[in-house]
Amino acid sequence: MAVQNAFEQKKRAILSEIDSTQPDLSPKGSIDALCLPIIELINTSNDMVTTSSCSGRVSVFLEGTKSYNGEVKIGGKGQGGKWLYVTHDHEKVVGWLDELMSKNEYALETCGKHIPSEQITGTTRYILYKYEPFILHVKCRDFQIASKLYNAAMSCGFRESGIGSNNLVAIRINIKLDVPIGYLDESSETLMLFVSPEYVSILDSLSLSKFDENARKMQTLYDKIDNELINCIPAPNTKTKVALAETKEERRERKKKEGMERQRQLKSTQNQL
Amino acid sequence: MAVQNAFEQKKRAILSEIDSTQPDLSPKGSIDALCLPIIELINTSNDMVTTSSCSGRVSVFLEGTKSYNGEVKIGGKGQGGKWLYVTHDHEKVVGWLDELMSKNEYALETCGKHIPSEQITGTTRYILYKYEPFILHVKCRDFQIASKLYNAAMSCGFRESGIGSNNLVAIRINIKLDVPIGYLDESSETLMLFVSPEYVSILDSLSLSKFDENARKMQTLYDKIDNELINCIPAPNTKTKVALAETKEERRERKKKEGMERQRQLKSTQNQL
Repeated sequence: MAVQNAFEQKKRAILSEIDSTQPDLSPKGSIDALCLPIIELINTSNDMVTTSSCSGRVSVFLEGTKSYNGEVKIGGKGQGGKWLYVTHDHEKVVGWLDELMSKNEYALETCGKHIPSEQITGTTRYILYKYEPFILHVKCRDFQIASKLYNAAMSCGFRESGIGSNNLVAIRINIKLDVPIGYLDESSETLMLFVSPEYVSILDSLSLSKFDENARKMQTLYDKIDNELINCIPAPNTKTKVALAETKEERRERKKKEGMERQRQLKSTQNQL
Repeated sequence: MAVQNAFEQKKRAILSEIDSTQPDLSPKGSIDALCLPIIELINTSNDMVTTSSCSGRVSVFLEGTKSYNGEVKIGGKGQGGKWLYVTHDHEKVVGWLDELMSKNEYALETCGKHIPSEQITGTTRYILYKYEPFILHVKCRDFQIASKLYNAAMSCGFRESGIGSNNLVAIRINIKLDVPIGYLDESSETLMLFVSPEYVSILDSLSLSKFDENARKMQTLYDKIDNELINCIPAPNTKTKVALAETKEERRERKKKEGMERQRQLKSTQNQL
């Protein structure tokens, strides 16, 4: 019987959670489909395991109530902050304003020509429109592997990456939008937009461009990791494994199918809940 | 004669550059005054040296010409991108629009009620209003010190920090604004604003709040580093030095004065150039 070290135990536990048809701990409850290829790729390595990910998303967030006890929370979630809209799917970006209105949870108006600046105070709950790019956390067997992954990510433009505690690598890139588009008028429970629907359309088209750029960067990173950490010839005295049994294309295709199958299973489980 | 190792040589070279009255390599040419206390604190340690910093800033950036050869650059600097306005000083945030207009480099108009969406294409050069928070890079003697600094930063809310190559720690926080506020009408060389001056005022007041939050976070980080990396009782077998000759307050006061003196010298040098 092979004795597992701490990394291997952790990896097995994480993979069995990923393989499970139960929802995971994220608000969405499952891995974003666009992340599956790179997650599957990384997890073929004996030296790495993915721990969390987001493929990139557009969100519209209503800040919570801000506290003045001690620290003033500006721009944070606050008490009772909530997502008015979230999508990871570029096809669901355009039209979010209509969808939000159709929910009838809040009334929604545009400020029109003049913003009632007397209503904007330090405790105003803003509505924030955000584009957030791909982010991935990967636990590595040792610091050498973590460094290699970090260097691969940095060289592909993921310039805000870093190694954290316990050889956990965060892969991050700075493709963002962070725009205050309105505020909640608490007296009338109305979402008041500072900006016109035309301006919202411009934000949406910028988000679509960012989704594209994001997808290109993810592919570049996939190829880099594939070439430098997976299908590499190991240098003497490194633990990196050679995995050449199937071609890149074959594995990519197989992993994509397996991932899609798991998504289907997960969806059918969720529908039954 | 003491033999210096690579870290010590590097540190001495960096400190002599900081101490020099010559402009540094940044666009601004000098260290932001708000960064001086934490930079001086960190550099009192034998195990750390700061390599770059920004105290936080508001900027208005005109994107450059985008290329369609190969990769489309969206949201990047592009060829000929330029800063229309930059300030690290919270007192110079309000009024930037007037200052920009007074420069007469570009005509400036607001789109008014309707954005001419037919003019917005994939090659449109947007005007981006940004708030970017404090960022600091610190080279550490070894991985143990880098980990300690990383953990200190994370525990103060600098959640996008990370350790990079050669024990270089990047300390980063996510307090941002990233707002497309207009575009360049190339035919008339006119900056066209999507948003009203009132909306710009809201952005400015949000930036001011972020400057405040940023300053609080910097102070928290200063105290944490002071307590855990500078004035700490070393655990057995660590190389961390004890530096208790003067009290925290005394050193802070002295370092502040020294920093201010250097800024004055630098300014007078720059005025002579």
